[in-house]
Amino acid sequence: MRAARELFAERGFDGTTIREVATRADVDAALVHHYFGTKQQLFVAAMEFPVEIGEVVPAVLGGPREGLGERFVRFVIALWDQPDVRTLLTGVVRSASTDRTAATMVRRMLVEGPLLAIATSIRTPDAQMRAAVAGSHLFGIAMARYVIAVEPIASMTPDELAAVVGPVIERYLVGELGTGPKTGSAG
Amino acid sequence: MRAARELFAERGFDGTTIREVATRADVDAALVHHYFGTKQQLFVAAMEFPVEIGEVVPAVLGGPREGLGERFVRFVIALWDQPDVRTLLTGVVRSASTDRTAATMVRRMLVEGPLLAIATSIRTPDAQMRAAVAGSHLFGIAMARYVIAVEPIASMTPDELAAVVGPVIERYLVGELGTGPKTGSAG
Repeated sequence: MRAARELFAERGFDGTTIREVATRADVDAALVHHYFGTKQQLFVAAMEFPVEIGEVVPAVLGGPREGLGERFVRFVIALWDQPDVRTLLTGVVRSASTDRTAATMVRRMLVEGPLLAIATSIRTPDAQMRAAVAGSHLFGIAMARYVIAVEPIASMTPDELAAVVGPVIERYLVGELGTGPKTGSAG
Repeated sequence: MRAARELFAERGFDGTTIREVATRADVDAALVHHYFGTKQQLFVAAMEFPVEIGEVVPAVLGGPREGLGERFVRFVIALWDQPDVRTLLTGVVRSASTDRTAATMVRRMLVEGPLLAIATSIRTPDAQMRAAVAGSHLFGIAMARYVIAVEPIASMTPDELAAVVGPVIERYLVGELGTGPKTGSAG
């Protein structure tokens, strides 16, 4: 999975072959086919940040907790912005509203992926809710940026988006949540 | 538009007739047909919070600025939760990814609706960006709650969602935004 992600990132979907992924992972191409199926399926698996979220989470949790959200959002947007990833993501987002499989994929991405892993890192009982809210927010950003083309979201840089959205994702994942209306939350 | 919204809210889509809307608005039914077309179109227009956002914005801006986000989110979720509104909203969200008209509708909802009006209330140069980010967030919540059924978002009450998401919407619309790490963007 790491080899696939690296190669997709370096060369894009079209520029990568299963054989190259296998070579970099030091396994036989047949093995990759066996476990992941087609290149498209491998790509989907790579996009899904599945069980092996080993790369994302340490990169985000490493360093000070403050700025965690920004690092995460910058990473995610930069990843999504890659033309091939973008194409796939757009397809997934598009089909999520009508296709059961794509919907399940998005659901899992939101509540079982790195977001949950990060939220769980603070040992909170509401980790799933935190991940779901943060994930929904990022999903909305993806829709706005890639599918509906809402300005200025569509043309903001990953850094700009990270600066605005990152602190909110951080709050959702590891920060203090609002706990109700009339509590005079100290400034 | 106010009469339509009231009646749709009271009686739902099926329970409302154009004639009743016309009667409450003290105009001829033909006039309503002339300006809004079918009942479906009238409903879409009512959902779109178009130019006449007179009802929402004062209700949200009235009262202390603190809590504005919660009031807004509670209002919006309670509105969306109404079975008929929910049906329409789901349709709009679903078609937004494939249909140009629905996409335009969502885009306008996000950047020309009450969100923009609220963001503009603090006379900020980045009102459109604020509205777009807040709107994308709410759009993601709508997808998660109604279309993809992500738990626990799908089963949280409007109050619970407002408590978690409201402060973030408030931050986006009228609060201080993160201004990024290394760019000393002059405040």
